[in-house]
Amino acid sequence: MQILVSIAPVVSVLGLGVAFALYAGILKQDAGNDKMKEIAEMIHEGAMTFLKREYLILGVFIAIVFILLFVFIAVKTAIAFIVGALCSMLAGFIGMQGATKANVRTSAAANQKGQDAALQVAFSGGSIMGLTVASLGLLGISIFFLAFVMMAGDPNVTYLAGFAMGASSIALFARVGGGIYTKSADVGSDLVGKLEAGIPEDDPRNPGVIADNVGDCVGDTAGLGADIYESYVGSVIATITIGAAMGSMSMSYMTLPIIVIMIGLLASILGIASMKLMKGVDPASILRYTSFVAAFIMLAVSLGYVLMIGMSWKVWAALAIGSLAGIAIGLITEYYTGMYGPVKNLAASTSTGAATLIITGFALALESVAPAVLVIAVATYFSNYYAGLYGIGLAAVGMLATVGITMSVDAYGPIADNAGGISEMAELGPETRKITDGLDAIGNTTAAVGKGFAIGSAAMTALALFSAYTQAVGLSSINLVSAKVVIGLFIGGAITFLIASMTMKSVGKAAMLMVDEIRRQFREIPGLMEGKVKPDSATCVDIATKASLREMILPGVTAVLAPVVVGFVLGPEGLGGMLAGATVTGVMLALLMANGGGAWDNAKKYIESGHHGGKGSEAHKAAVIGDTVGDPFKDTSGPAMNILIKLMSIIALVIAPLLVI
Amino acid sequence: MQILVSIAPVVSVLGLGVAFALYAGILKQDAGNDKMKEIAEMIHEGAMTFLKREYLILGVFIAIVFILLFVFIAVKTAIAFIVGALCSMLAGFIGMQGATKANVRTSAAANQKGQDAALQVAFSGGSIMGLTVASLGLLGISIFFLAFVMMAGDPNVTYLAGFAMGASSIALFARVGGGIYTKSADVGSDLVGKLEAGIPEDDPRNPGVIADNVGDCVGDTAGLGADIYESYVGSVIATITIGAAMGSMSMSYMTLPIIVIMIGLLASILGIASMKLMKGVDPASILRYTSFVAAFIMLAVSLGYVLMIGMSWKVWAALAIGSLAGIAIGLITEYYTGMYGPVKNLAASTSTGAATLIITGFALALESVAPAVLVIAVATYFSNYYAGLYGIGLAAVGMLATVGITMSVDAYGPIADNAGGISEMAELGPETRKITDGLDAIGNTTAAVGKGFAIGSAAMTALALFSAYTQAVGLSSINLVSAKVVIGLFIGGAITFLIASMTMKSVGKAAMLMVDEIRRQFREIPGLMEGKVKPDSATCVDIATKASLREMILPGVTAVLAPVVVGFVLGPEGLGGMLAGATVTGVMLALLMANGGGAWDNAKKYIESGHHGGKGSEAHKAAVIGDTVGDPFKDTSGPAMNILIKLMSIIALVIAPLLVI
Repeated sequence: MQILVSIAPVVSVLGLGVAFALYAGILKQDAGNDKMKEIAEMIHEGAMTFLKREYLILGVFIAIVFILLFVFIAVKTAIAFIVGALCSMLAGFIGMQGATKANVRTSAAANQKGQDAALQVAFSGGSIMGLTVASLGLLGISIFFLAFVMMAGDPNVTYLAGFAMGASSIALFARVGGGIYTKSADVGSDLVGKLEAGIPEDDPRNPGVIADNVGDCVGDTAGLGADIYESYVGSVIATITIGAAMGSMSMSYMTLPIIVIMIGLLASILGIASMKLMKGVDPASILRYTSFVAAFIMLAVSLGYVLMIGMSWKVWAALAIGSLAGIAIGLITEYYTGMYGPVKNLAASTSTGAATLIITGFALALESVAPAVLVIAVATYFSNYYAGLYGIGLAAVGMLATVGITMSVDAYGPIADNAGGISEMAELGPETRKITDGLDAIGNTTAAVGKGFAIGSAAMTALALFSAYTQAVGLSSINLVSAKVVIGLFIGGAITFLIASMTMKSVGKAAMLMVDEIRRQFREIPGLMEGKVKPDSATCVDIATKASLREMILPGVTAVLAPVVVGFVLGPEGLGGMLAGATVTGVMLALLMANGGGAWDNAKKYIESGHHGGKGSEAHKAAVIGDTVGDPFKDTSGPAMNILIKLMSIIALVIAPLLVI
Repeated sequence: MQILVSIAPVVSVLGLGVAFALYAGILKQDAGNDKMKEIAEMIHEGAMTFLKREYLILGVFIAIVFILLFVFIAVKTAIAFIVGALCSMLAGFIGMQGATKANVRTSAAANQKGQDAALQVAFSGGSIMGLTVASLGLLGISIFFLAFVMMAGDPNVTYLAGFAMGASSIALFARVGGGIYTKSADVGSDLVGKLEAGIPEDDPRNPGVIADNVGDCVGDTAGLGADIYESYVGSVIATITIGAAMGSMSMSYMTLPIIVIMIGLLASILGIASMKLMKGVDPASILRYTSFVAAFIMLAVSLGYVLMIGMSWKVWAALAIGSLAGIAIGLITEYYTGMYGPVKNLAASTSTGAATLIITGFALALESVAPAVLVIAVATYFSNYYAGLYGIGLAAVGMLATVGITMSVDAYGPIADNAGGISEMAELGPETRKITDGLDAIGNTTAAVGKGFAIGSAAMTALALFSAYTQAVGLSSINLVSAKVVIGLFIGGAITFLIASMTMKSVGKAAMLMVDEIRRQFREIPGLMEGKVKPDSATCVDIATKASLREMILPGVTAVLAPVVVGFVLGPEGLGGMLAGATVTGVMLALLMANGGGAWDNAKKYIESGHHGGKGSEAHKAAVIGDTVGDPFKDTSGPAMNILIKLMSIIALVIAPLLVI
């Protein structure tokens, strides 16, 4: 039955075909009037320019790492690395094409046909990203597995780690660069536009508003896509690596995760198709149901496969635990950041000003860490109970197998957000704006859930990679009583704090440049405030692009070098300690920042919907401060943590052969 | 030479005698006019009432734990526990007596005799706390060591852990209760007084201002004292426990830490005396030099002792490393929170409002974690390199041996702060206020350094206790590759976040009650704003007392139960993982919060000193928000982390015998 792996590339191509068909379908849709087309073209141009310049910089990085891997590790690892990196870049490029074509057509559909049609376009746009991520991941892993392992008859799977490392490296830069871009543009536009000039969000007079919309694409679509892609690839390769050491049945164990994600991709396509059947259901439920449909199909078929090849149901149980844990973490995130008790209390705390709002929000964020971590701990415990370290890997795979659909739902959000921006800028009227606002609000919830999911899957993936690393360096034990391990633990923790600090400062610096430029335009361009003259949006886009690309380099290089330096100085045990320290603190900081930022954002929205005095009240002013504080938390530094912990683990896995000697 | 231990009780009594002499000396000083006496009496009453009520609650807790230890562990452990707890309470009581007598006399000395005399009184007041903490710690440890080990001829040192547990339990409640008290009173008074009523800080019309001054005593004096006392006792007992397993030389190894703190106490007395010799030196330098004098004497005499008993200089090196690391962490804290580049940049970030101030401050705080953790890592590495796990314990002892003087300097701060408040309330005029402000400013620096030192010593103590725990449960290895350990690591991390959240929320709740009461008084008491009628300060004191005592129970009980539950559910290895996870995240959160809070505080002071528009400017308003956010960070939740990590480790050490079976 392992031969099923050889049809994985075919399934991958099928997935890519569906993505392409969706893309063709979107292009056929009406793109609205000339003004809309012009705005959309500016966003598209801005996003593509960012990607191109980013990829140029990454090209240099990839070339250097390729040479290092070629010389010090193995030629196969180097090849896998470069293909992994290219696949990640390609997925980002295709997803961005889809998103920047779908946004304006969502806006047009909302204007001409209503909510259902608009939802359909936005979700199709998201599905391009979702299916591309899943398909390219499956394609790369299956081809390398076939070539390096099955066909070569070589039980050595260490080369595969190169593929995951390629994905991870790109992910870090994409997430950090995109995160800095999106928040500097957002914070910069808001500070000058909303607070100083007193004009609404997405107002066409604001020079930074195009950059803000570009930021939604490069941060929320490309950045999140790279993040999830990395978890997806990392979890599968970690599980293969652990499976390789499982004796006579090892081929079955190695192929299982590949088969599972193949089933997951097919289930995701069915899930996307199932949407057509749900007429008359509200949009939020539709998005939720499609994910459940896909997860259910994936689990059912996987159970059949596991039993058929004579494995224990316990192996499947680990898979199911991971899938459930993913949902549970998403729900916890929704509870803490949605319109429930915690956010309402948070909004009420504005009655004594911004300081109490920040304190209360921070307390909320600290608290929200505990239940999510408990879920991760319980999932780790039971998946390990049922299937050992392999079970931990499989739980991560179970969480991520239906990434085709979960990523589609995530990528839908920024498209709906963009559609709202375009509707506002093109002045399509309140009716259209109401529809896009509704879709955007759902997008905010899915984004919060998606962030929780991303963190949960990153944690499980990092644990799986950690297990794979210990096997790769031949350590059956990493002794916490040894001073080197304790030191590693501390250093790992300190690095996550340092990277969080770097990225947060970068947003500050880039936002300042943006503020200066927007202020300059309002001051120097006559007729801008009156709406007679267009702003110079291109300069703002350029500033955000340059600043974010410059700022992504230091944290990126730090993250890549840290495990190498620690590995050689403290040895393999010390590096293991560092990975554990980074994973624990990284997951907690990620949860803290994502939930804090999400809660402040929604507390502001809650007040804007008419509570505690509504827009313009003192409470609202405090809430705007909270939201601004939360922006880099939830969209820059927090997400960087996910990547960081996976990237450091995967680098450790790649350099493992050097540490054993 | 080990017999020197038997003179330790004598040295302790000498230390207590000096403390008493200082107290008698202070009482001889003039306590100012009637108004001052009245205010001082209210603060004294408030502080003592808080202590009495707190001790009543703790009495119940102590009784329950005593019975549990008696039944499940050992009668000797139970006795050591109760004495440890009583010593901690007694130290808090004596220190508070000293502080609340010295504050008003400092104020009077500033008014009548000038800066030098005022400094002398304030520092003498602090020294009462410092010497009492050191002496009672030495007394308890040496007597139990003599009784249970040397005289009984019993190599079993596990009973001693009970003494440290007693100290720890009291410390947690004192730190958390005091921390909530001080910040609820501070935040409450400031929010209504400064922002709403527009009256200055410490204005006698503000009903919360007495409670605020009481808070400085119970939080900064008693709370910090309990914290440092716990580190002191914990580090010595951990080192004794590790030393007990060191074979034929074990008696020398066990007695060494006791001898060292005995030398440290004598050195501290000499350091305090040396102050008299430094005429014409500025106050900040005086405080610094006295600490250096004591540290130098302690290290020199210890080196002599170590070589004399035939131990290697390497053992002494570990001691010296700890001492140096303590100073280094203090300096790092000073750099990040003093009037240097980081705080000046932070103050500049108010130009774009409160949101950027919070973001920049948070980034600063995140960054500040890395260098301090690096110092801890390096100290751990080298002390372990020179003397193994015993070296780690000894490094902690080295950091804490001169606690008699470092604690004196720390306790000086709140006395100077109080003196400033009394001068303002008693309207002693700008000249006096200028002197007390100057002494207070030095106190703020020493407080920041003291906080860094408290965290560093807590980290080293926790590591030492962790090592002692692993020996006590007979684990030569705690395997990070095992799922239970990883789960423990996550749970440990989550608990620190949870306790931080609980304490932060508690401040919010208590502050709200305070705000309501102060608002009520301004509204309902006619003539209060005009200064014709006195406010009802007693009710505010009562509210803060009740709220803080009520709120300290949940986090306290959680911290005590967590290691017991995890130990029995996940076993000794899992508990080891939990301790490691809690220590790593706890140290980082403590540093983050202490430095962030300190930096926001000083950014406000920097602006108040005339930069960026000075008092009343938009920048200042933003800075007040930052300072308010930082208050519970640096004075409640952050310090709670120190205790938490030590307390959980010591409980693990105490229940170790139950886990081995």
